[in-house]
Amino acid sequence: MPALSRWASLPGPSVREAAFMYSTAVAVFLVILVAALQGSAPRESPLPYHIPLDPEGSLELSWNVSYAQEAIHFQLLVRRLKAGVLFGMSDRGELENADLVVLWTDGDTAYFAKGQIHLDPQQDYQLLQVQRTPEGLTLLFKRPFDTCDPKDYLIEDGTVHLAYGILEEPFRSLEAINSSGLQTGLQRVQLLKPDIPDPELPSDACTMEVQAPNIQIPSRETTYWCYIKELPKGFSRHHIIKYEPIVTKGNEALVHHMEVFQCAPEMDSVPHFSGPCDSKMKPDRLNYCRHVLAAWALGAKAFYYPEEAGLAFGGPGSSRYLRLEVHYHNPLVIAGRNDSSGIRLYYTAKLRPFDAGIMELGLVYTPVMAIPPRETAFVLTGYCTDKCTQLALPPSGIRIFASQLHTHLTGRKVVTVLVRDGREWEIVNQDNHYSPHFQEIRMLKKIVSVHPGDVLITSCTYNTEDRELATVGGFGILEEMCVNYVHYYPQTQLELCKSAVDAGFLQKYFHLINRFNNEDVCTCPQASVSQQFASVPWNSFNRDTLKALYSFAPISMHCNKSSAVRFQGEWNLQPLPKVISTLEEPTPHCPTSQGRSPAGPTIVSIGGGKG
Amino acid sequence: MPALSRWASLPGPSVREAAFMYSTAVAVFLVILVAALQGSAPRESPLPYHIPLDPEGSLELSWNVSYAQEAIHFQLLVRRLKAGVLFGMSDRGELENADLVVLWTDGDTAYFAKGQIHLDPQQDYQLLQVQRTPEGLTLLFKRPFDTCDPKDYLIEDGTVHLAYGILEEPFRSLEAINSSGLQTGLQRVQLLKPDIPDPELPSDACTMEVQAPNIQIPSRETTYWCYIKELPKGFSRHHIIKYEPIVTKGNEALVHHMEVFQCAPEMDSVPHFSGPCDSKMKPDRLNYCRHVLAAWALGAKAFYYPEEAGLAFGGPGSSRYLRLEVHYHNPLVIAGRNDSSGIRLYYTAKLRPFDAGIMELGLVYTPVMAIPPRETAFVLTGYCTDKCTQLALPPSGIRIFASQLHTHLTGRKVVTVLVRDGREWEIVNQDNHYSPHFQEIRMLKKIVSVHPGDVLITSCTYNTEDRELATVGGFGILEEMCVNYVHYYPQTQLELCKSAVDAGFLQKYFHLINRFNNEDVCTCPQASVSQQFASVPWNSFNRDTLKALYSFAPISMHCNKSSAVRFQGEWNLQPLPKVISTLEEPTPHCPTSQGRSPAGPTIVSIGGGKG
Repeated sequence: MPALSRWASLPGPSVREAAFMYSTAVAVFLVILVAALQGSAPRESPLPYHIPLDPEGSLELSWNVSYAQEAIHFQLLVRRLKAGVLFGMSDRGELENADLVVLWTDGDTAYFAKGQIHLDPQQDYQLLQVQRTPEGLTLLFKRPFDTCDPKDYLIEDGTVHLAYGILEEPFRSLEAINSSGLQTGLQRVQLLKPDIPDPELPSDACTMEVQAPNIQIPSRETTYWCYIKELPKGFSRHHIIKYEPIVTKGNEALVHHMEVFQCAPEMDSVPHFSGPCDSKMKPDRLNYCRHVLAAWALGAKAFYYPEEAGLAFGGPGSSRYLRLEVHYHNPLVIAGRNDSSGIRLYYTAKLRPFDAGIMELGLVYTPVMAIPPRETAFVLTGYCTDKCTQLALPPSGIRIFASQLHTHLTGRKVVTVLVRDGREWEIVNQDNHYSPHFQEIRMLKKIVSVHPGDVLITSCTYNTEDRELATVGGFGILEEMCVNYVHYYPQTQLELCKSAVDAGFLQKYFHLINRFNNEDVCTCPQASVSQQFASVPWNSFNRDTLKALYSFAPISMHCNKSSAVRFQGEWNLQPLPKVISTLEEPTPHCPTSQGRSPAGPTIVSIGGGKG
Repeated sequence: MPALSRWASLPGPSVREAAFMYSTAVAVFLVILVAALQGSAPRESPLPYHIPLDPEGSLELSWNVSYAQEAIHFQLLVRRLKAGVLFGMSDRGELENADLVVLWTDGDTAYFAKGQIHLDPQQDYQLLQVQRTPEGLTLLFKRPFDTCDPKDYLIEDGTVHLAYGILEEPFRSLEAINSSGLQTGLQRVQLLKPDIPDPELPSDACTMEVQAPNIQIPSRETTYWCYIKELPKGFSRHHIIKYEPIVTKGNEALVHHMEVFQCAPEMDSVPHFSGPCDSKMKPDRLNYCRHVLAAWALGAKAFYYPEEAGLAFGGPGSSRYLRLEVHYHNPLVIAGRNDSSGIRLYYTAKLRPFDAGIMELGLVYTPVMAIPPRETAFVLTGYCTDKCTQLALPPSGIRIFASQLHTHLTGRKVVTVLVRDGREWEIVNQDNHYSPHFQEIRMLKKIVSVHPGDVLITSCTYNTEDRELATVGGFGILEEMCVNYVHYYPQTQLELCKSAVDAGFLQKYFHLINRFNNEDVCTCPQASVSQQFASVPWNSFNRDTLKALYSFAPISMHCNKSSAVRFQGEWNLQPLPKVISTLEEPTPHCPTSQGRSPAGPTIVSIGGGKG
């Protein structure tokens, strides 16, 4: 990518002074490139990633990532500019305190500013180009990952919540923005795509489209569409080596995520079906189609397997039935839209050296792991111990190349750390802005090697602010999970490496808080753990002591070949893995002076003319 | 203060390249002002504060504070420059990771650099002037309070640990510095002196010197010298309105701190004495001279009372005997040095409208408040509740104008926060680099008004890394305290407003950890709390649960007229004050580009010549 010359701003009126004077006539825009825009577009580097922001698709974001510059170029396409546009990033997609760029106009002049409603003294978004295209107005700007201002949003690996606002009506100043006249929303995306060159496909690669059969998208906000696809009879063992989304043109803003599952090999046949997954007409057998072959979510591009590995499907012991699940997100309840979106699998009959496998890390699905109510950031941790990896991994270890993080509704952060010889060694995958509504399989930027004897620690952070009772672990949507599905090779027998607190120590906890609070929790044998947690009077002592228990008590390990078959060994009352040193926080490469621009909005001088 | 033009650096060799070539001949220095030094000394603003850094006094630091610029000008006087000098700041005075400036030379060229041994890419110390004076070489430089680089030291209110190093021998590069050939040390000082103009003294102000009578400083590292001074017979009631140090010239680096105490009025007479406080010859009665009249420590200037208030002494009910205590710090065991240092009291017979008083906030001296061993930052908190201030303060409240923080050896931080209507309102006093070896009475930058019904919360942070057993509260030097002596007016009857956890709840704690750990702590009636704490097996659960206890259990309040007389009311089993909102962290005013300079050392071009 060519070095970009710096954009210098013209002195502009202060935001407070720049009262918005909106002419009642239709605003007329003619874009001219302003002398102040000394930067230029990155000529040699296109913007490979795209995502629609609003459900109508009137705002579209394209971007690229420069790991060398630690910066992103954004291009915002505004198809129908009304009174202005806000775009930014924030922890959970809220517009308040978002790290924003704002474009607004008073008819003669367009302003481009950056701030958090209250303008920031630093301009960390650099406007590089304003252009009118047949599609609409495009704004090209640049933002470092880390502005080195602790008040600004830090662009990290994992989910980023993009917040936008479309100003329908005039507003007097940035500070005067309120909800009326402002259409807002959020879009989740992984901005920092891994910097992996697309591997070349072998010449014998075939493709198979698993697509919805030209269905009509229901006119309701949320639909999960289920469709069964049958593999050809006698389809032999193949390796999936790549997959990519097929999204019907025009529906880009409606197709939220798609997954392809393989059905259980035990079923001889699965009835064909195409309809909403929650339909009463859906055959029960579809519930046994849960083995993930491919998963895509908005903003993601193709997924590639490493050149030495592929995901096996077909052949004996493998079901001939695939289930496609498409999540349509249609908040404007648009009616009558047809769709044939799906996933294109690339596969080869020339099997690669290694089968890829999927392993579950994190917490066992059990109520003994619980989150008290009214917590903003409660952490639960699951362990894959040295004893289990020692036993189950081959001497040369395994290589993790992708990861899918999973929690239920209260999950806010997930991280898995590799610990070697008691020291935190590297992060396997981390999402500090995790959303249960955005669960992608993500290729790792760097393949992580796990040796026998290593420990994998998965921590999930939950927000239960709006709950009255404890949230226990379990399968229910109102219960919680903490899982990292890691994709690795060579495949081993180890499918589950998870933990939970020892149940006897949890009973000690209930006893001791009873003693402290003079009885509240039934510690009688007939009470279930869920009932016990539901009866805890949640004061700070009971909450802090539960934390103390989870970070002290021994664990029960699931070191399993499949969900029911354990490796041989003693897995109860295992000591918590010791961590004697933690990873250092990454030190930001703070830009020196040249990265910084002065405060105040910039006049983009969108002069008069005929629109 | 005039605005300073910025210092621009010349391109210099990188530190790694700048191998130190030390000529075996005596280095000859002739200072010339370099073209690169575009800044100038602050002409209109002298540097009012001075402190010797090393025990020999060969390095002396002077400084001023600009609250407008949020920066400090430092002038380092190097009396006898050898191979170089290091100067910086760090959390506890350690040179590793200190935020340093380094001056070194290869005979022809002097380099001035800034870093943390490994050079920092930012130059946040700006060299303004290098000058040769008859006294030595002076370096004038400027440092913002906050460089906005999280790796740099943040200059805050309270104690700052200055670290220095004198390079006796050549060293090849900054990275090669090691302990041999490097004389290092630390000096504690309050850099951010309050910006209070010295009030004018009334014309009738008298002075009284309380000075050591030309004693010989013992040739040992630590001496506390005690000296009894008698007030004139019939000395009537006066107000002390100011005091200042008198330090014998030449002994500036030896006199560490001084205090003047008044003896208990119950004693008719106190024998005259001048000698070490730990001398066997010291009369026992001197132990009853503990009422603080004045306290000074190294680097402090005069202490002024607010114009409406004074500290009463003299007259009926007040002892005629004062005890001066001087702490001589003589690590080089210099012998034969005479000294007459002491404190000059300024007082007036024309009593001011208000008597000043001293109130003790924080924790009761009791073993129920304990710190587990091997903790790096364990926090204990003491409360002055709304109920006590409601009862004991006058309707118009009190005004706190000064504060002296106090802990024993493991104290690392102290803070008192005022809470009003459940919200943290303002900080009374805070020291994030507190040292028990540096306990000054500090004038507050801003007088704090306390209303009846306000809550004062004092928290101390302790480091017990080097201890094997719990550290309990108490009077012993190996026990701990958490106290803020606040100086205020108008004087009230309230002398103590402190708390401790309820003793019954602490016994519940011992019971419950016994249950969890299968018995370890004797909960029998004959065991003392200290014995109980000494028998706790300190695992993470017992430690975390003790924290949970302290932040949950009700407290016992000492809302006392004197150390033994409580105000009437129920003071046991009081609820912990609720805090519904906390103060925001102060947002740094990060300098934009113009405050930053490029990396690399600067050539100061100290050319050849005759020294």
